[in-house]
Amino acid sequence: MTAFESEADRSILELGRLAAERALSDAACEPSDVASLHVGNALAGELNAQAGIANALVSRLGVEGARADRVENTSASGASAIHRGVEAIAGGADVALVVGVEKMSGGETAAVTESISRLVHEREYAQGLTLPSFAGIAADAYLDRYDVPREALATVAVKNHENAVHNQFAQFRTSVTAEEALESPVIAAPLRLFDCCSMTDGAAAVVLSREGDVSVEGVAGATGTHAVAARPDPLKITSVRTAGERAFARTACDRDDVDVACIHDAFTILELLELEELGFYDAGTAWRATQAGETALDGQLAVNPGGGLKARGHPLGATGVSQIVELVWQFRGDAPTARQVPGEPETGLAINVAGFGNNSVCTVLSG
Amino acid sequence: MTAFESEADRSILELGRLAAERALSDAACEPSDVASLHVGNALAGELNAQAGIANALVSRLGVEGARADRVENTSASGASAIHRGVEAIAGGADVALVVGVEKMSGGETAAVTESISRLVHEREYAQGLTLPSFAGIAADAYLDRYDVPREALATVAVKNHENAVHNQFAQFRTSVTAEEALESPVIAAPLRLFDCCSMTDGAAAVVLSREGDVSVEGVAGATGTHAVAARPDPLKITSVRTAGERAFARTACDRDDVDVACIHDAFTILELLELEELGFYDAGTAWRATQAGETALDGQLAVNPGGGLKARGHPLGATGVSQIVELVWQFRGDAPTARQVPGEPETGLAINVAGFGNNSVCTVLSG
Repeated sequence: MTAFESEADRSILELGRLAAERALSDAACEPSDVASLHVGNALAGELNAQAGIANALVSRLGVEGARADRVENTSASGASAIHRGVEAIAGGADVALVVGVEKMSGGETAAVTESISRLVHEREYAQGLTLPSFAGIAADAYLDRYDVPREALATVAVKNHENAVHNQFAQFRTSVTAEEALESPVIAAPLRLFDCCSMTDGAAAVVLSREGDVSVEGVAGATGTHAVAARPDPLKITSVRTAGERAFARTACDRDDVDVACIHDAFTILELLELEELGFYDAGTAWRATQAGETALDGQLAVNPGGGLKARGHPLGATGVSQIVELVWQFRGDAPTARQVPGEPETGLAINVAGFGNNSVCTVLSG
Repeated sequence: MTAFESEADRSILELGRLAAERALSDAACEPSDVASLHVGNALAGELNAQAGIANALVSRLGVEGARADRVENTSASGASAIHRGVEAIAGGADVALVVGVEKMSGGETAAVTESISRLVHEREYAQGLTLPSFAGIAADAYLDRYDVPREALATVAVKNHENAVHNQFAQFRTSVTAEEALESPVIAAPLRLFDCCSMTDGAAAVVLSREGDVSVEGVAGATGTHAVAARPDPLKITSVRTAGERAFARTACDRDDVDVACIHDAFTILELLELEELGFYDAGTAWRATQAGETALDGQLAVNPGGGLKARGHPLGATGVSQIVELVWQFRGDAPTARQVPGEPETGLAINVAGFGNNSVCTVLSG
């Protein structure tokens, strides 16, 4: 992957190329080995004046002849591209290259926010709701329903920022205290600045093939109801639950086997809700487990050892692929010691979510 | 499919929904049968203020729970989405719904042109080159290299417009004479108005499953060199050639078996070049075959019985899917008599091209 930064001194194509070349090098593959290129990207057309990004990247990489396409699933574009690559291998390709890339600094902040908000159901968009709005409403409901102290949200931010201190690729590499998180400016009450992920530039890439030291045990996706107000329970993100169930169903693993997980913490509340939807914790209890250190690097289930979206940053199309990259490093023991999950992790899970649970893609890996 | 129109009185989501519901009805499938939804669309973000179009369409169709994504490959987004759907079935899904949709009237003409031109290599974009430019240069080279009369280009326009007279879904349903075509305003010499496809709104959809009366014998894609100037020969669209070879290699068919073909005639010259690259005719001879009527409805190889991009219209993401729809109707004998390919066609080919040959996807069907 490339460093995830607020404003990368590289074009979107250069970011994609850099990550891809690093992955090809790591896999000891030549561009001519690549049969299939899949690019995960959400907003290149809106923000970077780039149409046909996959085809432009083909020539940057020197993989002319390979088939190629771009896969878009807003913030889960990366995992959807991974899913696409896996099915390309199943369909006969020997080597598939998956690149997730986003350059959010390509547009003015207001334009970026507007482009993202256009994934919201038109009725809710018209009412002025944004992703932070939904997250704030959900956080408020969670704290209320389960009688949770608001410090619980800060625990997630503290953990993920601490992990990112040792991640050279992370956007934010400074730790934060619970007090700082709790006193930071309100974004969408009760969520504050340190409860919300950032806008980021970056790219991540993965080479898929028929052999290797890390296996994709299962990958699956599921969609939910577009309008949050139309859901039976706004605290239930059914697409996450269903994607997780389907992914595990394709494997011989179950939740207890998972040593390390990359969870889509676009907002701190989402880390808690997703851990519950995935069945790692009962409803309303993930916050206690987090406070008890169960999701720390040395906990029962290491969550977001790379910093998560919160601290590593969230370049929309790149995130899902960077989650896979992080898991591969963890399996190989290649993460910096200070954030290496101990005990030789062997089973990992990644969940990448589009919108406020519009679409989730879950991947289970072993290595 | 929906009617292809200059300015549909439906939103982009309504267009997609309408085509999808028609396909589901034709397949006797319920929304709950759909395991996988793939949306082919090029510019919804730029032109229609729609992010995450696949996820928005999920709720419009009532297929929540299905996995979904959008596939983008500029003008070949439709065929890439078909390819995605086929591999989803290979990966385990029982029923995949593929919807191609574009609403180009969503933006001002200048904005649409700008968005499309952003697929051009940045160096050539900076020089003011557009897709019509490349096509004009290629047409000029073709006429010169093979000593072809310019009337040859008009023959393609006349044929495709004539076919579309009997296509209720086509954007243009009036025939045109060779004289009218040859006298129409110059767009990019020697190409004139009737040599160039239009901007269109429309949607097309296909239900893929493990059984049915029409089979996808093979589908394959290939990319070419991004910058046209960097290609050894601007008259060789290698991505078309390679995609065709790969598609046939996956089947038990060869070119002689093909009864009917949907060729990507974004410009009349492209119909000729692609027929040659696909091996149906030797280089520089497709124009003679067209003039001799070999590609007419009752010819040896019926080309673009639905009117092609030229007369049916070219809603970017929908076109590749509409080519498949046309072939299915031809196999079933469901096309209006006046444009039904006689003799019970059994093998068909569709070629969908992104940019000026940046990326091509070829599908071979039997029915």
